[in-house]
Amino acid sequence: MDITLHAAAQRLLEADHILILSHQSPDGDTLGCASALLRGLRQLGKQAGFRCSDAVPKKFEYLFAGLEEQASSPVFVVSVDIADQQLFGAGLAEYLERVDLCIDHHGTNSRFAKECYVEPGAAAACEIVFLLLQEMKVEITPEIADCLFTGLCTDTGCFRYGNVTPRTHRMAAELIERGAQAAEINRVMFDTKTRGRLEVERCALQGMSFHFDGQCAFMYIPRKLVDDFAVEEGELDGLAALPRQVEGVLAGVCVREKKDGSLKVSLRTNAPLNAARICEAFGGGGHNAAAGCAFQNCTIEEVKEKLLAEIQRHLEGCKS
Amino acid sequence: MDITLHAAAQRLLEADHILILSHQSPDGDTLGCASALLRGLRQLGKQAGFRCSDAVPKKFEYLFAGLEEQASSPVFVVSVDIADQQLFGAGLAEYLERVDLCIDHHGTNSRFAKECYVEPGAAAACEIVFLLLQEMKVEITPEIADCLFTGLCTDTGCFRYGNVTPRTHRMAAELIERGAQAAEINRVMFDTKTRGRLEVERCALQGMSFHFDGQCAFMYIPRKLVDDFAVEEGELDGLAALPRQVEGVLAGVCVREKKDGSLKVSLRTNAPLNAARICEAFGGGGHNAAAGCAFQNCTIEEVKEKLLAEIQRHLEGCKS
Repeated sequence: MDITLHAAAQRLLEADHILILSHQSPDGDTLGCASALLRGLRQLGKQAGFRCSDAVPKKFEYLFAGLEEQASSPVFVVSVDIADQQLFGAGLAEYLERVDLCIDHHGTNSRFAKECYVEPGAAAACEIVFLLLQEMKVEITPEIADCLFTGLCTDTGCFRYGNVTPRTHRMAAELIERGAQAAEINRVMFDTKTRGRLEVERCALQGMSFHFDGQCAFMYIPRKLVDDFAVEEGELDGLAALPRQVEGVLAGVCVREKKDGSLKVSLRTNAPLNAARICEAFGGGGHNAAAGCAFQNCTIEEVKEKLLAEIQRHLEGCKS
Repeated sequence: MDITLHAAAQRLLEADHILILSHQSPDGDTLGCASALLRGLRQLGKQAGFRCSDAVPKKFEYLFAGLEEQASSPVFVVSVDIADQQLFGAGLAEYLERVDLCIDHHGTNSRFAKECYVEPGAAAACEIVFLLLQEMKVEITPEIADCLFTGLCTDTGCFRYGNVTPRTHRMAAELIERGAQAAEINRVMFDTKTRGRLEVERCALQGMSFHFDGQCAFMYIPRKLVDDFAVEEGELDGLAALPRQVEGVLAGVCVREKKDGSLKVSLRTNAPLNAARICEAFGGGGHNAAAGCAFQNCTIEEVKEKLLAEIQRHLEGCKS
């Protein structure tokens, strides 16, 4: 059932022994939400804990600095930035049917919890948690401000994307006033690459090929490249965006070889090409500008040929 | 003489036949200021024109869309985002001693004009022009909002850097409300590379070398690379930032071979290394985190050897 922000705040104020859940492959928004809420609940004197199916990536560890574990059985379970039960991950299976409150900003939220507050217009779930904490009269400390700012900046590509609203910027302003170390967080999130990431990036760029008068850019990341440099999944964020960044490119393709040998395709398009339409031809899907599909038991040469043929068909369709 | 923002607005309200000057090698801030002010002055019924020593780069042409030339001899000259007379460029030599009002945000402004309004705390000169236009009761149209937003986002690396203040974010919020096409401007400024730029970048990355246990990253961009791909100066923005982005790097060096054969060094450092101190050893200078110097009649091998030796000396100095 959908409830108001005020009601969501009331539930949390009335509860104790609260467990906060983040989605698997956690990002800055789900972790920023979790830590901000955890800190807020403890500030109010409550017992509160946090769980995620995957470990907190190293670059987000600062979000949890100074927070000690509290051993208590959860009585009230709240999920943050989780759109669907598929995103719980194996480690949170026991909570699949036990979520009391779901706080989220995905329009596709499947309403898996007893009660939900979902605001699809929010650029980041951290925008909602900010409002929620204010509703709960939590003092926004510099630590909480850091957490919330992390969610805002990571989910918006540092205030770059179309999901940014005037409210997003006004919240950023307020969080900086409350002590968020904005420039340092931005530097870590947007101006820092691991050496492994750099190596993968330069090899991938080296092999990037252009087709159809530069309207399609194609990049391939073999498993060996990732293994050779011992690169973790999180270090590859944003790589799929590189091909479409090139001027004149309408279809930017990034193919990654996964551990099981399958080939995972990320397609980014500019109008008039529609990424979802192209990926649907291969059983995939997604959004107008970003979609994906996967191939089993195919060589990269076969996959490249199939994708390029489909992209060409769509490019020609746009002309007519 | 320094004057208040109110007085600066009064001067402009009292003037007519106003010429606005931007600095050479114009960027999004100086051009955003110029176009916003030009549009504001014309909205108030004034004759106003614009000049810059260099052509407006293609990616900034939208700032001047719909603005027609007005042929009139300037009676009042105002410079925007120009810190020093050296930045006028050859094309504006006739105005060197003729600037009535200087609007700027550089702490180093040399006060070359009759009257100056300089606010070093502003992240972009466009912040000041926004305040100025409001003071002059100019209506912030969507076109003006686009111009001002362009200055804000380009001078802050899309709200990433330490110069961003709460005011910067609040102004961005207001400009979006006034119709600024923020996401589209950000896409063009931060998510678009020319094909030539990509080619230079991938060659430069390919050749990037690491030294002193990864504490120094060294990149070289020979003239031939830039010539081969017919890359313009403006397309190389931000390349010098790449070496320092790699985790663990304290000194990121980018050396570019210029047309005259000289080698221009851009050095970016992280604390405790001081970029200005290192460049001073070669007659250069700059800031703590970003500095530069130049070498004449040297091979890249010689320059690399000299720079690495100096950097090593400073790295060892930090240890002790």
